[in-house]
Amino acid sequence: MTSTPRERKIRFGTAGLLGPAIEDLIHSAPGELADATEDIHPADLAEITEDLEPEDRVVFLNHLATDQAAEVIGDLDPALLKDAVHSLAPSRAAVVLRLMTPDDRADAVGSLDREEAESLLARLSRADREETRRLLAYPDVSAGGLMTPDFVSLRQDETVAGVIERVKGAAPEVETIYALYVVDEAGRLIGTLSLRDLLTASPEASIGEVMRDDFLSASVETDQEEVANLISKYDLLALPVVDAGNRLLGIVTVDDVLDVMVEESTEDVQKMGAVTPLEGGYFQTSFWRVARSRAGWLGILFLGVMFTATVLEFFEETIDGALALVFFLPLIMATGGNSGAQSSTLIIRGIAVGDVEAPDLGRVAIRELFTGLLLGAFLAVIALGRAMWGGQSFGVSMVVALTVVTVVTVGALIGGLLPILIRRVGFDPAVASSPLVTSLIDVVTIVLYFSVARVVLGI
Amino acid sequence: MTSTPRERKIRFGTAGLLGPAIEDLIHSAPGELADATEDIHPADLAEITEDLEPEDRVVFLNHLATDQAAEVIGDLDPALLKDAVHSLAPSRAAVVLRLMTPDDRADAVGSLDREEAESLLARLSRADREETRRLLAYPDVSAGGLMTPDFVSLRQDETVAGVIERVKGAAPEVETIYALYVVDEAGRLIGTLSLRDLLTASPEASIGEVMRDDFLSASVETDQEEVANLISKYDLLALPVVDAGNRLLGIVTVDDVLDVMVEESTEDVQKMGAVTPLEGGYFQTSFWRVARSRAGWLGILFLGVMFTATVLEFFEETIDGALALVFFLPLIMATGGNSGAQSSTLIIRGIAVGDVEAPDLGRVAIRELFTGLLLGAFLAVIALGRAMWGGQSFGVSMVVALTVVTVVTVGALIGGLLPILIRRVGFDPAVASSPLVTSLIDVVTIVLYFSVARVVLGI
Repeated sequence: MTSTPRERKIRFGTAGLLGPAIEDLIHSAPGELADATEDIHPADLAEITEDLEPEDRVVFLNHLATDQAAEVIGDLDPALLKDAVHSLAPSRAAVVLRLMTPDDRADAVGSLDREEAESLLARLSRADREETRRLLAYPDVSAGGLMTPDFVSLRQDETVAGVIERVKGAAPEVETIYALYVVDEAGRLIGTLSLRDLLTASPEASIGEVMRDDFLSASVETDQEEVANLISKYDLLALPVVDAGNRLLGIVTVDDVLDVMVEESTEDVQKMGAVTPLEGGYFQTSFWRVARSRAGWLGILFLGVMFTATVLEFFEETIDGALALVFFLPLIMATGGNSGAQSSTLIIRGIAVGDVEAPDLGRVAIRELFTGLLLGAFLAVIALGRAMWGGQSFGVSMVVALTVVTVVTVGALIGGLLPILIRRVGFDPAVASSPLVTSLIDVVTIVLYFSVARVVLGI
Repeated sequence: MTSTPRERKIRFGTAGLLGPAIEDLIHSAPGELADATEDIHPADLAEITEDLEPEDRVVFLNHLATDQAAEVIGDLDPALLKDAVHSLAPSRAAVVLRLMTPDDRADAVGSLDREEAESLLARLSRADREETRRLLAYPDVSAGGLMTPDFVSLRQDETVAGVIERVKGAAPEVETIYALYVVDEAGRLIGTLSLRDLLTASPEASIGEVMRDDFLSASVETDQEEVANLISKYDLLALPVVDAGNRLLGIVTVDDVLDVMVEESTEDVQKMGAVTPLEGGYFQTSFWRVARSRAGWLGILFLGVMFTATVLEFFEETIDGALALVFFLPLIMATGGNSGAQSSTLIIRGIAVGDVEAPDLGRVAIRELFTGLLLGAFLAVIALGRAMWGGQSFGVSMVVALTVVTVVTVGALIGGLLPILIRRVGFDPAVASSPLVTSLIDVVTIVLYFSVARVVLGI
C-alpha cells in the first residue's frame, strides 16, 4: 500500500510485452537493465522475473536498481524467494534487504537456511535485525506473520491538528496513513481512527474525544484465513494485531489479505484435485517436486481403490452368472461418485463461508436424503430405458435401476455428512474432497450393486 | 468503505450470540428490534438475517431502523436480495433504497422483476432514478456493474490546500476519499492522486503539478475477475472506470473486489464438483433449486458415462475369456481419472493466476508426458504385485500393469492439455474440470484396457 510519489512515470501491465526485450538485455548488456526497467511497475517486474530461466534470474536481480530489486523480491512468488535472496551478492543483499518493508524483509530472511539468515542479519542495523527477528517468531500463516510494524500510533492527549501534521511527516515511512491507532502509556491499543475521521474532526479536539473505542483486533496467533474473513466482512483497510496483553504490535493491511485469499483458494482447489498444494506456480515448481507431490496422493488413492478388486473377487460367482452386470459397473460407480462429489463440494464450501455448521448435521442429512432419492429416481428411469433398450433382461435392468437410486442417495449422504464429521473432530473439512470421497463411494457402490443383484437375481 | 463517525458504540462478531435473542424478539416484541439492533454491525445483522426463516426475515427487515436496513440489505447474500427488497412495504422500500449506496441500490432494484422495479424507481428522486438506471445498464460481472459513481473528482487548476478543504466536506458523501481523480472539462480522466500524495504536497501547488498521470483504469465492460486481478496485483485501494471516450464514470474499491474474489473462488470450486454455481449459500437456496442445479450436471455426466456400457458390450468376448480383468476395472478407471484430475487442477489454476498461457501447450505436453510415465510406472509396480500375489495369471497381471502406465500417462496428457485447448477456443478452462475429464478418461481407459488385453492375451 506504500505509494511514495515518484518523479518517473510508471508503465503498468507491460510484463508480457517487455519480457523478451529484457531477456535480450540480460544476455547482451546487463549493465543497461537498471535504466531499462526504471519505469516499469515492480509487480510487472516480479512477473517477468518469475518467467525467466533460473540463471537469467540471477543476472536480472543483481542488475536492477536496489530499490526496484527490494520491491520486486517483496512481490515474488514465495516458492522463488529463497533462490532470489540467495542469488544476490552478500553486500547487495544487505542493501536490498534494508530497502524492503519489514514484513517482506522477514519473509525474505525467513526463506533462507539458518546459517545464511544469520550472516545476512548480521549485516543489518541493530534495529532492523531485532525487528526482523521478532517478526520471524510468528508462523507464516498467522496475523503475526502477515503484519507490518510500520503504523502510525497516537496518544489520547494529542490534538487533531497536531496529529494531522505528524501524519503528513510519517506518510513516506509507514505502510498506511489511512488507519491510525491510539495506544496508552504501556502501548496497549485503546482506540482507532481513520484518516477520514481525523480530517472531518474539529482541529482543536483531542484524539481521545474523536477516536473510536469500538474496534476489532486480531491476536498474533490468529489464523490468516480468519484475518482475511474479518477484513472482508467488515470492509476494513487494516486490522490491528495485539499480543496477549493487548499491546499493539503491528497491522495487517487489505492488500496482504488479497494475496492470502488467492493463496487459500488455490490450496482448496488443489486439495479437491488430489494434489498436495504447490507453494509456487506450475512452471516455477520443479518437475520432481510436482511429481513427488502428485505421487503421494495418487498412491494413497490407488491403494484405497485397490480394495475394489478384492470386493469384485468376492462377487465372482454373481459376475459369472450375469456378465451383463459388468457393462453397467463403470456407469454406476461414476454416478455414485459424482453425486458424492456434488454434495461434498456444496457442504465444504458452506462450512468455509460459515453457512453450514457442525450442529446442522441433521438438517443436512434430511436434505441430502431427499435430494439423493429425487436425483436417483430421475437417473434410474434413464438407466432402465438404456438397459431394456440395449437388450438386457428385465432382471438385470431392474438391478441397474434400483442400484442407481441407492448409490446416488448413499453418495449424497456420505458426501454431505463426511465434511461435517471431519470438521467436528477438528480437521479441515476439505479433506473430504472429491477423490477421497469417490474412492470410498467406489467400494460402497460395488458392494451395493452386487448385493442388489444377488437378491433380485438370486445368484 | 464508508465509515461515517457514529455516536453509538458498535459491537462486532455478535451474530452467532445474538441470533437466538433476535428470533425471540421477532416473535414476541418486534417493535423493540430497532433499539435492540442499534449497536450491532450491519455485517453481523446481515449474517443474522440470512440465518432466519423466510417469514421471520420479513418481520426483521421491516422493523430495523431504516439506515440499518439499508446497510443490511446491501450486505446480504445476492440470492436473498430479491425476497428481501420484495418483503419491504412499498413506502419503506423507497426510504431504505434512498439510504443505500448507489451500487447497492442498483443491485437491489436489479434483483426485482421489471414491473416491480419500475414502480420502485418511480418513488425515487429523479437524480437517484437516473443514476440507478445507468448503473443497471451494465452487466453484474463487469467493472460497470461493480462501480460506484460516488467519488471525488478534481480539476487540474485547483490548489492542494483548496482540495484538502473540499475533500473534508465530501467525506460523508463519497465511497472513499483516499483515492482522488482529476478530470478535464469534458469529464475525461487525466490523472489520479492519493490522499497521501495530497497531504504531503505543498499547499500552494496546483493539482495538475502533483497529480500522477501514470495510472490504470478499467473500461465499463472489463470483467470483474480482471478488475480483481489488477487491484490485487498493483495493491490499489480503488480502480477508476471509464467509458470508450475515457470519461470517468465511477470507481471500484478494494472491498468490492474482496467480495468478488470470494464469489469467483466459490464458482471455480463448484464447477470442479459438478455443481452449477449456486448464487446463495447452501441453506439459503431452496431444496428445489439445489436439486435442479445438481440434476443438470449429474444427468449430463450420466449420459456421458453411459457410453462405457456400449464399449464394454463391444468387448464382451474378451471379458468372458478373462473374467479376472473385471476385478481390476474400477482400479484402472479411478487411477486414470485421478491422474487427469491432478493435471487439470494444476493447469486450470495455472491459467487462472496467469502462470500457464496458451503458447505453453508444448511445454505442458512434454512435462505431463514424463510425469505420467513416471507416476504410471510407480503405480504399475504396485498393481503387478497385487495381481500376482492375488493369484492372477502372469498374462492378466501384465495387462493390468501395462494398462496402468498407459492410462496414467494418457490421463495426465488429457487433463493437462484440455484446459489449454478449451481456453484457446475462448471458453473458461474450468470447464475441463474433474468430473468431465474423468468421464472422458473413463471411456478412453476402458478401450485401452481391453485393447491391451486383446493384444497380450490374444482374446
